[in-house]
Amino acid sequence: MGKNLFIHENVNKEALKKKAFNYRWAEIEDGVIPLTAADPDFPVAPEIKNALINYINDGYFSYSPHTGLEDFKVAIANSLNSRKNEFVSSELVLPIDSAARGMFLIANTVLEEGDEVIVFDPVDYLFRESTLNAKGVPVLFPAKLDNNGYIDLSELKNYITKKTRMICLCNPHNPLGAVYSKENLELILDLANEHDLWIMNDEIWADIVYSDSEFLSILSLGVERNKKTLSVFGFSKSFGIAGLRAGCIYAHEQEIFNKILENSNMITTAGGITSLSQIAGIACLNESYYWVEEFIKHLEKNRDYAVERLNKMNKITCHLPSATYLVFPNISETGMTSEVFVERLKEEAKLAVVPGTAKFFGPGAEGHIRICYATSFEILKEGLDRMEDWVNKNIDK
Amino acid sequence: MGKNLFIHENVNKEALKKKAFNYRWAEIEDGVIPLTAADPDFPVAPEIKNALINYINDGYFSYSPHTGLEDFKVAIANSLNSRKNEFVSSELVLPIDSAARGMFLIANTVLEEGDEVIVFDPVDYLFRESTLNAKGVPVLFPAKLDNNGYIDLSELKNYITKKTRMICLCNPHNPLGAVYSKENLELILDLANEHDLWIMNDEIWADIVYSDSEFLSILSLGVERNKKTLSVFGFSKSFGIAGLRAGCIYAHEQEIFNKILENSNMITTAGGITSLSQIAGIACLNESYYWVEEFIKHLEKNRDYAVERLNKMNKITCHLPSATYLVFPNISETGMTSEVFVERLKEEAKLAVVPGTAKFFGPGAEGHIRICYATSFEILKEGLDRMEDWVNKNIDK
Repeated sequence: MGKNLFIHENVNKEALKKKAFNYRWAEIEDGVIPLTAADPDFPVAPEIKNALINYINDGYFSYSPHTGLEDFKVAIANSLNSRKNEFVSSELVLPIDSAARGMFLIANTVLEEGDEVIVFDPVDYLFRESTLNAKGVPVLFPAKLDNNGYIDLSELKNYITKKTRMICLCNPHNPLGAVYSKENLELILDLANEHDLWIMNDEIWADIVYSDSEFLSILSLGVERNKKTLSVFGFSKSFGIAGLRAGCIYAHEQEIFNKILENSNMITTAGGITSLSQIAGIACLNESYYWVEEFIKHLEKNRDYAVERLNKMNKITCHLPSATYLVFPNISETGMTSEVFVERLKEEAKLAVVPGTAKFFGPGAEGHIRICYATSFEILKEGLDRMEDWVNKNIDK
Repeated sequence: MGKNLFIHENVNKEALKKKAFNYRWAEIEDGVIPLTAADPDFPVAPEIKNALINYINDGYFSYSPHTGLEDFKVAIANSLNSRKNEFVSSELVLPIDSAARGMFLIANTVLEEGDEVIVFDPVDYLFRESTLNAKGVPVLFPAKLDNNGYIDLSELKNYITKKTRMICLCNPHNPLGAVYSKENLELILDLANEHDLWIMNDEIWADIVYSDSEFLSILSLGVERNKKTLSVFGFSKSFGIAGLRAGCIYAHEQEIFNKILENSNMITTAGGITSLSQIAGIACLNESYYWVEEFIKHLEKNRDYAVERLNKMNKITCHLPSATYLVFPNISETGMTSEVFVERLKEEAKLAVVPGTAKFFGPGAEGHIRICYATSFEILKEGLDRMEDWVNKNIDK
C-alpha cells in the first residue's frame, strides 16, 4: 500500500497551483515545471492531516505553553536519540517556528559584532544570512567533494583565525547532497574544541539519506565534546510541512540553552511556534516515519534516473548525491553562467531550476544548477526531457 | 441562534484543561478558576474551524508566500477600512506571527540604542519589553483616568525630551479598559508631529468595545498626519486564536514598511507566519464578525455584573471599562500588596487573577488586580462568589 503513495496520480497539481509558493507551482508561469525550492510535490502523510483535524475539532486555539508543548519536546528528543544516536535531552529542546529562525537565533546568541564564522561555499544561504544578521563576518571555506563523495576538509584549519567564533555544519549538505564521514566529523569537532568554537549544526536533511549511504550526526560522537554544538532540525524536508513553520533547536548545556530561550522572546510571547504546527510535528515524529521511508525509496529511483540522464547531456556532469532530494550538476563547460543557463531553460524549455548563484549558495556554486526531484517520476522525466531537448539544440557535444 | 453561542454549556472545560496555557486552565491547579490571561473560554466561530479543515483536506502544506497571503492582506485592509475608517492599503500590511512580534519588530526597526520611548504606566508589558529589546529607554507616563473615563493626557508633553523617539499608544487600553477621545488622539498626533516621533499604535483590543462607548482609531484622523504611525492588530482577543499566532503590522509609507519587512527576516524565510494561521485569519475577518458581535453582547452583561459585584466588596473599587474584557479593580485600601492579595486569593479562595505588578503592567499598576471575564456568566459568578466570601472573611468594611 505504502508503495502507492508516491505515484504520479497523487500529485495534485490543482492544489499545488494554489498553495505551493517559493518559486514553485503557485508562483511560476503556467506550463513551466518548477524543480526549484526543496519542497515535495506530494501530499503529506494522512496521519498529519488527521492529527490536525482532531485538534481543531473542539474549536479551541488557546495560548500554548510559551516554550513549546511538552509532548513535542519529548517526541523530538526520542526521535533524535532512537533514530540518530544524538543524546538529546527533551529539556534542552526548543521548538521554534522553522529551522531558519533557529539558525538566526543561534547566530544572534553566540556572535558578537566582527566575529568570524566559517561558512562552507557553496552551502544554503541561511548560514551566511544568519551570520550577517548577527553582525558576524562569514569566512568562506571552499567545499569540494573528494573522490569518496565527502567534502574535502584538509584545508579547513587554515581558515581559522583568532577571530573565529563558529563553524557552520550543514549535515547532510545542501546543495552538494553529501554526508560526512566519522573522520571528517572528528576533524571538525577537534578543531572546534581546540579553538573553543561554536558549531551551528543544521540537520534539516538528516532523514533524506539513501540506501547506499549513511547519516552520521556529529552529536553521536558524544555529549562531552559537543557542549558548544547548537543544532537545528526542521519538518519541511522530511514531512512536507514548510507552510506550518515547524522546527527546533537542541543544545547540550543548560546555560547556552537559557540564553537562546531568552533571545527567542518566547517568554514574552513575541516569539513562538503555533499549537497546530506542534501538533503536526508530533504526528510527523510519532506516526509518519513509515511515509518518509517510502518517500526515500521513491526519491532514490528519481535520483538514479536524474543523474544518469544529466550525465548523458552535452557538456553537463553530475555527481550522485548521498542525501537530500537535490542534484547539483556542473554546467560550466557550456560556457553559460548559471543565471543565463537557468533563465534560458525557463524561457525556452519551460523548466525552472535554481541557479548556482552567490545569492543562494555562495560564489563557489557558480557553474552549477540545482534541481529538486521531490516530485513524481513522470514530472521529473518530463522536466529532464525538456532540458535534454534544449541542450541538444543549444549546446554542442 | 447566535445568542446561544456564549452559554455556559458551550465552555468545554475538558478541552481547556488540555489546551489553555499561559496561566489558564491547563497550567492552574485543579479546582482553581483562572480569570487570568486575556483569552476566551469559548470555542471559536465554526467558520474558522471549517476554513482550516477545508485547507487541510488536500494534504498540502507547501511554502506560503514569504510576505504573506495576498487574500489575507486584502482582508485585513478591507476590515480595518470598512469597520474602523483607517485608510490602510493592503500593500502596506505585513501579516506576522502575533501582534507581540510586530511590536518587537517595530521597536527594533525605528529605535537606536538610548532612544527614549514614552510608555504609559500602567499598560501591557509588551511596550516596555519591545523597547528594552531594541535597547531603547522606556520613559513611564502615569496613565490615570479622568472623570470621563479617558486617560488624562494633560501632562504628556512634559515627558518628551530631545531623546524621545516614539510614543506607545495602546488603544483601547489594557488594563484600564479605556478608549481615547478624538481630542486625546489629536493631542498625541500633534505632539508626535511636532517632535517628529514615531507612534506604536496597538489596536489588538479594537473590536472589543461596548455599546455605551466607541472605538476611534488614530488612523481615522488622516493618512497625512500618520506617516510615522506603525500599527499592530492581532486575532487572539477578538477571535480566540492566540495559539495560532496571527497578527499584522500596517504602515502608511513605503519606506518604513520596507525597513520593517527587511528586519522581519521574512524574505529569507527565517521570519513568517504559517499558512494555516493566515487561513484562520481570513475566516475571522471575512466570516466571523457576527460571532464577535454576539460575544460583545455577552461580555457586556459580564462586565456590568462584575463591576457591580466588585464595587460592593469591602474596600474594593472598580471603574467600568469601555473596552477589553478586563476589569482592573483597586484593592489598595485593603492594605495588601497586589501580589499578596492575588497569592492569597488563589490559595484561600481558589480564584486566580493577574496581580497589578510592575512586571506585567508597570509600577503604576500596584494596588490593583486584573480580572478577565471572557468566560461564561456562571464561571464568572462562581469566581466572584469565591472572592466575595474571602473578602468578607479577611477584609473589614
